[in-house]
Amino acid sequence: MTLTEQMTLLGRQARTASRALARLTTPQKNDCLRAMADALEAECGALLEANALDMAAGKQNGLAAAMLDRLRLDGKRVAAMANGLREVVALADPTGRILDERVRPNGLKLQKVATPIGVIVIIFESRPNVTADAASLCLKSGNATILRGGKEALHSNEAIASCMIAAARKALPEFPMHAIQVVPTTDRDAIRELLSLTQYVDLCIPRGGEGLIRAVMECSRVPVIKHYKGVCHVYVDAAADFKMAEDIIINAKTQRPGVCNAMETLLVDRSIAAAFLPAMGQRLADKKVEVRADAAAFEILKPGMPGVKTATEEDWYAEYLDLILAVRVVNGVQEAIDHINQFGSGHTDTIVTSDAAHAREFLNQVDSASVFWNASTRLADGSEFGMGAEIGISTDKIGARGPMGLEELTTYKWMGFGAGQVRG
Amino acid sequence: MTLTEQMTLLGRQARTASRALARLTTPQKNDCLRAMADALEAECGALLEANALDMAAGKQNGLAAAMLDRLRLDGKRVAAMANGLREVVALADPTGRILDERVRPNGLKLQKVATPIGVIVIIFESRPNVTADAASLCLKSGNATILRGGKEALHSNEAIASCMIAAARKALPEFPMHAIQVVPTTDRDAIRELLSLTQYVDLCIPRGGEGLIRAVMECSRVPVIKHYKGVCHVYVDAAADFKMAEDIIINAKTQRPGVCNAMETLLVDRSIAAAFLPAMGQRLADKKVEVRADAAAFEILKPGMPGVKTATEEDWYAEYLDLILAVRVVNGVQEAIDHINQFGSGHTDTIVTSDAAHAREFLNQVDSASVFWNASTRLADGSEFGMGAEIGISTDKIGARGPMGLEELTTYKWMGFGAGQVRG
Repeated sequence: MTLTEQMTLLGRQARTASRALARLTTPQKNDCLRAMADALEAECGALLEANALDMAAGKQNGLAAAMLDRLRLDGKRVAAMANGLREVVALADPTGRILDERVRPNGLKLQKVATPIGVIVIIFESRPNVTADAASLCLKSGNATILRGGKEALHSNEAIASCMIAAARKALPEFPMHAIQVVPTTDRDAIRELLSLTQYVDLCIPRGGEGLIRAVMECSRVPVIKHYKGVCHVYVDAAADFKMAEDIIINAKTQRPGVCNAMETLLVDRSIAAAFLPAMGQRLADKKVEVRADAAAFEILKPGMPGVKTATEEDWYAEYLDLILAVRVVNGVQEAIDHINQFGSGHTDTIVTSDAAHAREFLNQVDSASVFWNASTRLADGSEFGMGAEIGISTDKIGARGPMGLEELTTYKWMGFGAGQVRG
Repeated sequence: MTLTEQMTLLGRQARTASRALARLTTPQKNDCLRAMADALEAECGALLEANALDMAAGKQNGLAAAMLDRLRLDGKRVAAMANGLREVVALADPTGRILDERVRPNGLKLQKVATPIGVIVIIFESRPNVTADAASLCLKSGNATILRGGKEALHSNEAIASCMIAAARKALPEFPMHAIQVVPTTDRDAIRELLSLTQYVDLCIPRGGEGLIRAVMECSRVPVIKHYKGVCHVYVDAAADFKMAEDIIINAKTQRPGVCNAMETLLVDRSIAAAFLPAMGQRLADKKVEVRADAAAFEILKPGMPGVKTATEEDWYAEYLDLILAVRVVNGVQEAIDHINQFGSGHTDTIVTSDAAHAREFLNQVDSASVFWNASTRLADGSEFGMGAEIGISTDKIGARGPMGLEELTTYKWMGFGAGQVRG
């Protein structure tokens, strides 16, 4: 079979499976998810064996220690995957929700009803637990998935998917065997082939580094909801409570610096910069945060912070994912907004202020998925938003924006209930 | 300036304009729309002069009579454009709607708020009135537009857009001059350049023939909401009221055969085919509809309809946009659903039946934007749905599905109102 034939087969199988999944009831889907969770735990040994193959190959290929750690499965991690599935059971089924309802003057009743999207391709990097997480969210929302994880995790991903499918089919014989498929090759061209199948694939969700996202955007013919980088800002307004601003900044920068909703750039109003920055710099230094400052901030910080560096324009675009912070002094809220709209990534941005007019200006004009007034950027997250679990955080505006939970994995259709109505 | 520079400039100008548009209030937007409507009428002479240039070139280039008619402007058509703008004034502003609201256990209040998308590229074919229609809907929803109409209508489109912009700026000096831009070249490569500008363009909506849509899908790096063809079906179930079915079919096929929500294929349950088809065939023949039937339907229709033709597989995929109807006999509702999901275009499909279980099965399983029970496919339309006006009918599932009115031209952002909340 050529690669094209292989990917076409995957796509066609997923489309057929998606029709069957859309017919399952909520209790049927939940029974399958529970059976999958139990099976992951019961067959932990087999999963660890498959993972050992990946780990051995990874070591042989000189994978970095951090990557090996992300790749590694153990009993605790398998149990966490299983519990993740059980949490999805507890979430409300997002399909069948009536989003709008109206009766037209001719008597035609219309309902806008949430439905599964159909077939979703998810592309991600090395952590094998994403296989179970993503597949379970797609299953609960009635979607078939084709998963393409990191090449170094192929054995682990295949073992997890097979275990889940086998368990579901034991619990429910009509469960479609191609509801969850792992791309069975590490050939890079597989992505291009898969994302050209507009007749079979409804959506692609890439999660990962900038290179991966760009590559998907370049080649995809199907809609893509990007989970792009997070260059998140905190702007400290003239009317900010300094203590609150410091606490938010320390949390946003240091609580977990390696994730997309961590803060990367601090903007400070010029009128309070000299009063605010020295103490802030001290707290950042205590947390071992490297500061890269524009000229104005540099002058203020330098006396108390010998290690402060100077920022270049590249720093305004940077997603460090590390204990590094860019700092810039701006002339008020409008310049802060303009900076964020120019250099940001449309992810999450915060204003700290007690001035409601400034806050409103910021919330309205910053063109990002999440805009916060007096709260840490780290709160932009599916579980913090009450969605239960998330497939990721979209930086796109079409289809879904911000945290994507179960509801964001649905589309809708219009159902019309008539009595013979025709057009006049 | 190279084409790349020219398109980059258009994109950058549109992005800047979109920021200014997003700040306008509803009364400001309505004042501008009213001023634009008045100006189109007041400057009708100038519009007709520009149109005369296009008409002369069109005749010289041998444009078909139907195309010339679509291209032609006159006083009545200009007045209709102006009135279209006034109707948009009367519609509710779709931005600022609170779509969801929740307070999290930590006290963070979240609002999901409808916002403009930003910059929308609209690609369409020859009718110049689309320029005014599309630009006014985008303006009311706070979006900047870049319009690319048919090359034969360039002078008309530019005249309409300039007239609208000038009128708005007279009414409101801060109205952004690049809120509505017409691509100032007929170079085909302009589309590719424009749709590679992911930093400036948020969405592309192509409206037109299959070739246009495919070309856009091939080259676009920005999200696309396709307005693809309408292969709409009516399925006559065993439990159908024959009179109702006949009336729906005649309306769906013949009331306006050249549009995307007209019916193209009739599916009839085998158990009633012999009873239903002869009278139906007679009514279709009276309306001069050419029938292309599968073997079973052919046998039934032939005695009373000497002109009936035989269908080939191509007919099941065909969007005739003409007085031609494909007819197929199927074994019950499931086979009808399977036919539609295999050959349809996901636009609009109807079941005629008095059997609620069959209707439910059909509505749930047919994977189309609009699914009707006992109503004509012609009712799938923005104005019939009560949206007031529509930019078109989406056959996509991501971003918008079915008729796209003002609300479908918005996205959303999450606003968070805190008191210093951080992540634990």
